[in-house]
Amino acid sequence: MNGPTSELIQHQWQLDHEAVRRIQLDRLNQLLAVAGENAFYQPRLANVRLPLESLDQLSEIPLLRKSDLVPDQPGLPGRVFALPRSSYVRYHQTSGTSGHPMPVYDTPDDWQWWLDCWEHVLHAAEVTPEDVVMMAFSFGPFIGFWTANDAAVRRGAMVIPGGGLSSEARLQMIADQHCTALCCTPTYALHLIAVASELGLDLRATAVTRLIVAGEPGGSVPEIRQRIEDGWDARVIDHSGASELGAWGFGSADRRGLHVIETEFIAERLRFDDDTPNGVPAADGEEAELVLTGLGRFGGPAIRYRTGDIVRGFREHRHACRFLYLDGGVLGRSDDMMVVRGVNVFPSSVESIVRSVDPTAEFRMIVTKRGAMDALAIEAELSPAGCETLRDRFQQRLALRVNVQPVAQGTLPRFEGKARRLDDRRGASSDRDEPAAKPESSRPE
Amino acid sequence: MNGPTSELIQHQWQLDHEAVRRIQLDRLNQLLAVAGENAFYQPRLANVRLPLESLDQLSEIPLLRKSDLVPDQPGLPGRVFALPRSSYVRYHQTSGTSGHPMPVYDTPDDWQWWLDCWEHVLHAAEVTPEDVVMMAFSFGPFIGFWTANDAAVRRGAMVIPGGGLSSEARLQMIADQHCTALCCTPTYALHLIAVASELGLDLRATAVTRLIVAGEPGGSVPEIRQRIEDGWDARVIDHSGASELGAWGFGSADRRGLHVIETEFIAERLRFDDDTPNGVPAADGEEAELVLTGLGRFGGPAIRYRTGDIVRGFREHRHACRFLYLDGGVLGRSDDMMVVRGVNVFPSSVESIVRSVDPTAEFRMIVTKRGAMDALAIEAELSPAGCETLRDRFQQRLALRVNVQPVAQGTLPRFEGKARRLDDRRGASSDRDEPAAKPESSRPE
Repeated sequence: MNGPTSELIQHQWQLDHEAVRRIQLDRLNQLLAVAGENAFYQPRLANVRLPLESLDQLSEIPLLRKSDLVPDQPGLPGRVFALPRSSYVRYHQTSGTSGHPMPVYDTPDDWQWWLDCWEHVLHAAEVTPEDVVMMAFSFGPFIGFWTANDAAVRRGAMVIPGGGLSSEARLQMIADQHCTALCCTPTYALHLIAVASELGLDLRATAVTRLIVAGEPGGSVPEIRQRIEDGWDARVIDHSGASELGAWGFGSADRRGLHVIETEFIAERLRFDDDTPNGVPAADGEEAELVLTGLGRFGGPAIRYRTGDIVRGFREHRHACRFLYLDGGVLGRSDDMMVVRGVNVFPSSVESIVRSVDPTAEFRMIVTKRGAMDALAIEAELSPAGCETLRDRFQQRLALRVNVQPVAQGTLPRFEGKARRLDDRRGASSDRDEPAAKPESSRPE
Repeated sequence: MNGPTSELIQHQWQLDHEAVRRIQLDRLNQLLAVAGENAFYQPRLANVRLPLESLDQLSEIPLLRKSDLVPDQPGLPGRVFALPRSSYVRYHQTSGTSGHPMPVYDTPDDWQWWLDCWEHVLHAAEVTPEDVVMMAFSFGPFIGFWTANDAAVRRGAMVIPGGGLSSEARLQMIADQHCTALCCTPTYALHLIAVASELGLDLRATAVTRLIVAGEPGGSVPEIRQRIEDGWDARVIDHSGASELGAWGFGSADRRGLHVIETEFIAERLRFDDDTPNGVPAADGEEAELVLTGLGRFGGPAIRYRTGDIVRGFREHRHACRFLYLDGGVLGRSDDMMVVRGVNVFPSSVESIVRSVDPTAEFRMIVTKRGAMDALAIEAELSPAGCETLRDRFQQRLALRVNVQPVAQGTLPRFEGKARRLDDRRGASSDRDEPAAKPESSRPE
């Protein structure tokens, strides 16, 4: 199965916006015709006259929130994945807002579409059959680099699967196999710099010339990108995607932001407040939430999906790639999601897990940075055995090792109104004295 | 990309041996024409007149030993993988006989051939698009279930990638997602029974009806198979393969042995001793070493490869599948290879790693069984720091956590002739008093 050629992608990058909109309208109408059969979308599309005659009519379709997707029962897939289960071949899951993972499914065609989107990232990273790509990734149920792996293989690069290995073993393999590219999270790229430094290895002497980073916004954050590029003497190519949505963005040539893959996604930039729950279109350069419609995942369509990502987009810009440009990439989140070692963790999901052990125990979440890695620690007014149970449950539900410390009854702050149990210490200049935040293992989940 | 249909496979299983031999001769000549261009095979084929007119001429081609494959330098691929590196898209490795992993590569076509071979296993296991298959596998650089994963996807089953998860999390997912089939090593299948028992979970109540096991001979060993089948209330389908060779065998319908996939492999059964280094063909029912020629891996041909597997084969048998039947599966190894948690470990590779820390230190290897898992422990006349270095090196080179204990200088046995440093205690009735063999982690590498 062959993906789009580099020539086709180069052509798509140069299309003017009107040409892109014509492609989008055509593909959107194909998607809507299928989505109309989907029990989830049927009522949402009931008042929309299809086919749409113009993309301006997109706003007639209701916005889609993450919370709209969450299934009634744990274990069921997100509510847009409505085909018979036998239609799907790939299972993945998000960490979920309810403390339970939310399954997402892909059909064979949808998987190929993910890979088509990844071709844009690989083209931006100039990956060719001459490349040897190390996947520093555990290949568990999170989508992570699964699609990157298959897309790089389809493109003809040699791919080294790095699941279940220590950082040291991965570094050894990068050296032994003369890897030219590396896929990992930005913090893991930094972590490898620290490990190499301890081992006296010089990463700048490796053959790695590009790092494709995803899972966290670091690849478009100048300080982080620069530290990675300096440590590796290699170029960072950012990538953005989401399990519910697909692989939607890739790092711009100036390394200062992201492009949205507009041949595969329709991007809206909307501002929301209490008076405008349906959003107001934002102007170029204005901070807004990114709302995306994926055009190729027919087995689980994401139509007008509120990503929660805050961006500053520019339609008018001087980049060679004409796709919508997001200066600085994803600037932040509209909610207070944490990203721990590449896994999205919501305070609500942490609370839900704590509540499953003890419905009333007071607790707090402490997020720190140890070296390059984010770490989540929990202090809880629980017995040591209760903390042990809680640790197991984090491992089980989120596939994360979380440091859980028992603290004496009555010592944690109490809240009268809306509780603030998240203590985010990542911005602190030093975290060496935080007793609750032991460094986590070097192996990212 | 579609694989062979179930109808085609069913047809192949019913071919008589003469029809199979005609297919084999045709495909062998195609392979030999390509292998003749391969720098490794060129001298080996120099005196063979191609194309062969009969399979009887196969014996004119030299036998291939594992040691023939080992590259001159660590990091280089096995010597049969002789195309330009850019021709290959998949990297995997064996644990190696020299203490360094030996890379094996696959081209896109070779990978599809692996998946074609796996279709026989999946057909034997009656896997359909209705199935949900859990891959209890870490998806690292060992080939393991990587090809099974892709073949099951290609067949239309839904596949759940279980890398980087604890046994408990895997069991939870098997229950939550109503998995109907499970791919793992035999010892891991047993280990999950033990974990479920501790947690009070009833595996017989899960939807799992088939376990496809590989990596160790357990699936054809009656006692082990029975324990797995009882614990899971599910059928065990054995599978045999090797990184250097491909996926060559699948469990017979009576669950008492293996069939060789003779449309994809030519099987010889040879007896070797000092007087007959080129082997003597064995009769039906006679113990012999299995020598295989893979017919579809053009980028790294294995021609007359001595598997080291001891088998008792029957050409004449009453099974519905007419392929060569190996009663009892793989009965043992012609060398003294150990299989620790699915990873092949040779005494020679252990020694090589110990020697890299201290060229002269005395040591011994102790293999034990703790519950369902094999464990390797080392006692070495090294300092505690030396033992720490050795532990790290095992993790790095073999991706195994090995328990290394320092013992006092002069306490281990010395050898005058050929040293016997392997103390295999797996057959012992009790191992509870072995101080050197702590149970290893539940996560298989």
